[in-house]
Amino acid sequence: MEHPENNEEYKGLTVNSGIEQPSILNPYLQRNRFRRRQLTVDDYVDGILSGNVTILGQAVTLIESTNPQHQAVAQEVIERCLPHSGRSVRIGISGVPGAGKSTSIDEFGLHVLNEHGGKLAVLAIDPSSEKTKGSILGDKTRMEKLSVHPDSFIRPSPSAGSLGGVARKTRETIILCEAAGFDKIFVETVGVGQSETACHSMVDFFLVIQLAGTGDELQGIKRGIMEMADGIAINKCDGDNVERCQLAATQFRNALHLFPMPESGWMPRVQCYSGFYGLGIKELWDGIYEYIDFVRGNGYFEHRRAEQAKYWMYESINEQLRNGFYNNETIASLLPRAEQAVLDGQKTSFVAAKQLLDAYFALLK
Amino acid sequence: MEHPENNEEYKGLTVNSGIEQPSILNPYLQRNRFRRRQLTVDDYVDGILSGNVTILGQAVTLIESTNPQHQAVAQEVIERCLPHSGRSVRIGISGVPGAGKSTSIDEFGLHVLNEHGGKLAVLAIDPSSEKTKGSILGDKTRMEKLSVHPDSFIRPSPSAGSLGGVARKTRETIILCEAAGFDKIFVETVGVGQSETACHSMVDFFLVIQLAGTGDELQGIKRGIMEMADGIAINKCDGDNVERCQLAATQFRNALHLFPMPESGWMPRVQCYSGFYGLGIKELWDGIYEYIDFVRGNGYFEHRRAEQAKYWMYESINEQLRNGFYNNETIASLLPRAEQAVLDGQKTSFVAAKQLLDAYFALLK
Repeated sequence: MEHPENNEEYKGLTVNSGIEQPSILNPYLQRNRFRRRQLTVDDYVDGILSGNVTILGQAVTLIESTNPQHQAVAQEVIERCLPHSGRSVRIGISGVPGAGKSTSIDEFGLHVLNEHGGKLAVLAIDPSSEKTKGSILGDKTRMEKLSVHPDSFIRPSPSAGSLGGVARKTRETIILCEAAGFDKIFVETVGVGQSETACHSMVDFFLVIQLAGTGDELQGIKRGIMEMADGIAINKCDGDNVERCQLAATQFRNALHLFPMPESGWMPRVQCYSGFYGLGIKELWDGIYEYIDFVRGNGYFEHRRAEQAKYWMYESINEQLRNGFYNNETIASLLPRAEQAVLDGQKTSFVAAKQLLDAYFALLK
Repeated sequence: MEHPENNEEYKGLTVNSGIEQPSILNPYLQRNRFRRRQLTVDDYVDGILSGNVTILGQAVTLIESTNPQHQAVAQEVIERCLPHSGRSVRIGISGVPGAGKSTSIDEFGLHVLNEHGGKLAVLAIDPSSEKTKGSILGDKTRMEKLSVHPDSFIRPSPSAGSLGGVARKTRETIILCEAAGFDKIFVETVGVGQSETACHSMVDFFLVIQLAGTGDELQGIKRGIMEMADGIAINKCDGDNVERCQLAATQFRNALHLFPMPESGWMPRVQCYSGFYGLGIKELWDGIYEYIDFVRGNGYFEHRRAEQAKYWMYESINEQLRNGFYNNETIASLLPRAEQAVLDGQKTSFVAAKQLLDAYFALLK
């Protein structure tokens, strides 16, 4: 669970704790610390709709806050921005640490802004960031070109809570970014736990970045990733690595053919590129835009978005039902004994479950 | 949801409805219709522990009943049988309709009884059977040899309710069968919905039966099946079909190598056989018993069973939390509008979810 006292941003936002927040951690904190309380819901909404990225950033900080009052304001802002959202292309970009995601996103972002104009928001889902604090320092400094681009907005992963909570905040941030006129959204995610599934369920195209390795890279792929990918991009295809990358690409292509045709009707492509040297970027993105045109044409684009909206409603319900149960103090204290009784063969799984549920519903009355 | 009035077995068990139940539908009904009420928990437990299959069958019917009183007796019987359960090898057998499961299970069962002795129970998980009534008529007549074998007990799939409910009943039936001395349990399942996942989560070895087809059989495989398989068996490898089967086997072997090594440390094998002509059965089952020895040796056998027991406790909790919510009449009446509001972009998924949850928890008070 999230504890406000463990949340750096929360501290910075609501009280003058007397401790200087190093501005490198979050530039928004420093700048807006004493201005925050003056903004009304109207201010936020007007600011966002007029494309003011400072106010957009403040609103996102509100989304990320665990303070119930902030949450209430945030929900109202989101609700009012909702009719202005949706008009974007959302691209999920996944890859294990070391795949060169940040450098790639820097190049990808510059490419799409130069080629297609518009505005780009780069968001992230990294449920591990609370522990490592990695993404807070990382993204801004690693995306050197995008971070100074006038038409980009880079926001690190929300850093607190369960994957469900982190993903919810990212999804809400997408709404605000779209309302602020960002017509291209990148959602970066790391190969941790179920973060790819969460990312996949909020984007129009899910790109998986891979590296060519020792020849058995397919063995190392997490389960389910191949089925989720709308495209696979093999990075670091440069110098004496080109041949290995092309071999890996062939392997991935063969493997993709083992899976059923995706519902979109689009056979995922495998392409090589070099994020560092900027090679193959145009070909990769021409393919992605071709996909977008294709699914807009056959109706799958809208269908997938509607399914995602429903999915998140039900996910949200189911997660909160579970949280209500497992975070209940009495249940939490009874669970270990119940689990042990099941492992020892003293109770069936079903009797143990029923006793816990009976206790829970009795407490709710 | 289960409605007692839709449940044939329930009718037959509890009241003399005046309507003759055709005995072909369920031989237990006819025989025990007026005897049922006389049996106490002690009678059931003693009967089961002494290996009386008639009483075992009656106890399973009790498990399958939706009558709360039957359920209470059933739970007590299961609880008392639990210490006597667990000493068996549980094999899951999956395959789409037409793969020749019943004929194969007939041959498999005869083979293991002849080769290894002991007693065999054949159970099933078929959440579709309520609609089709297929498995009620089907299994007994299709397993010609096993159905008349003195050391076998064949029980069709529980025919009512959600997959979770059907699977729970099958899992409880395993406990009773083991307590009755059945040291070999087959759990058959069909390629419908999540039935394979449910089956996989209650067996020691999960066998997937496939057919050789038009050369692209891998395309037709359901997602996740390859990862679940502890072994793949290609049926109908006889006559002029042998070459095609061997080609398919090679394809499956190559595909299996694309997946990470299973946690068991056992690389799944692909074997061809003919259920109809009884070819390759010994080789297939020698491999399965080799697996059992292997995982007993490395501790994975016990580990998997413990994980399964925990899995079912948490699955059971989560399912009942969801059922409590979605089966609530008020919620059920609010859901369609909430979903529509989300699809129309009037509410975010999260606000819609929160409003429904608030309504639900207010009702529970």
